[in-house]
Amino acid sequence: MQKLVLLRHGESVWNKENRFTGWTDVDLSEEGVNQAKHAGELLKKHGYTFDVAFTSLLKRSIKTLHSALEEVDNLWIPVQKSWRLNERFYGALQGLNKAETAAKYGEEQVHKWRRDPNELPPAITKDDDRYPGKDIRYKELTERELPLTENLSQTMARVLPFWNEFIVRDIKKDKKVIVCAHGNSLRALVQYIDHLTDEEVSNLDIPTGTPLIYELDEGLERIRHYYLE
Amino acid sequence: MQKLVLLRHGESVWNKENRFTGWTDVDLSEEGVNQAKHAGELLKKHGYTFDVAFTSLLKRSIKTLHSALEEVDNLWIPVQKSWRLNERFYGALQGLNKAETAAKYGEEQVHKWRRDPNELPPAITKDDDRYPGKDIRYKELTERELPLTENLSQTMARVLPFWNEFIVRDIKKDKKVIVCAHGNSLRALVQYIDHLTDEEVSNLDIPTGTPLIYELDEGLERIRHYYLE
Repeated sequence: MQKLVLLRHGESVWNKENRFTGWTDVDLSEEGVNQAKHAGELLKKHGYTFDVAFTSLLKRSIKTLHSALEEVDNLWIPVQKSWRLNERFYGALQGLNKAETAAKYGEEQVHKWRRDPNELPPAITKDDDRYPGKDIRYKELTERELPLTENLSQTMARVLPFWNEFIVRDIKKDKKVIVCAHGNSLRALVQYIDHLTDEEVSNLDIPTGTPLIYELDEGLERIRHYYLE
Repeated sequence: MQKLVLLRHGESVWNKENRFTGWTDVDLSEEGVNQAKHAGELLKKHGYTFDVAFTSLLKRSIKTLHSALEEVDNLWIPVQKSWRLNERFYGALQGLNKAETAAKYGEEQVHKWRRDPNELPPAITKDDDRYPGKDIRYKELTERELPLTENLSQTMARVLPFWNEFIVRDIKKDKKVIVCAHGNSLRALVQYIDHLTDEEVSNLDIPTGTPLIYELDEGLERIRHYYLE
């Protein structure tokens, strides 16, 4: 049996302000910093240590990981960062307040954008300041990898190559793995691991800063999963 | 012309207590945390950003690096950690107060241990709790790589393979590199880059938390070097 730890970053400044974040590199809020530390304390309390860690290219996730690793005295382990673990790219909604967006487009449409795995938010164009092609951290991506908008299915499609190439490889080597990422990149991963339908994943919400433990069998099928408390 | 940034970690709790630290994984002092942040602020003020970072397996160095990278908004860059950048292994002196050691062995001997690149501190034995073979983070090392004591020449001998294989490779690819490490692993590196004699390196002291800039020519010979202020 293998244990895999998934961790959603602590609350960000924009979570708090109820704004669509996506790939915007928003920092943790003060509460988010505390949540990250608390996640580490929970891991420590339950005796978790790690051999390798994976995270996104966004600071709210990287800082949450660092904080958790510090608590379990694992700052020295290798950390691999990838854009493939980034939050879902929210297109032209990035930066908008969720309540204002609901007032403009209607609650139902916003709910669809947030929950329907196949619903695409309005796309940005390449001259938009939010276009990731303008950010040096994404310079290795091909043009078709650089998103203009993303639904959850597309998020899953770019998370899975990373899952298969790096995370699965290390789990199969019996390494103890922690993945610190985002609400939607983790939902995509959970949909895949747990064979969830689109309907099921639309009701799935992963809380910030709370370690989610997956016990997996040799075929990497879930035996059980639970949050630490 | 290439620029390379060397950074010694901020003050550790044992720097402050004037104890021999070596591979003991001592945390930053409060002052050290401030120094690390200040190092990042200096880098930011002078417009530095990085493509890749290297550090040791010790938290005082890793945390200093993270803090500096956060200030220049580079938390997302790849960070490679290696035992080869660890502080010099101080053998049986690790944990001892420098003043007490001087009282016991004499000022002159302590000065030699600290400064003479060929002087070996008393070795530990493999049953000593300080033996790195007991620490999981060094499990990939061969028995002859696990130190019982180290002089500065031996530190240089294990730093240089890492310099040549990883750091030089990235500098030659025109990557902007920061190396965050320790008083003696950095002295060893500087001795090599600057072709210093043993006599010259014995007088070299690198201050904590102060970015040291090397401007190198195509053959990686030093053009000039200076501290940021």
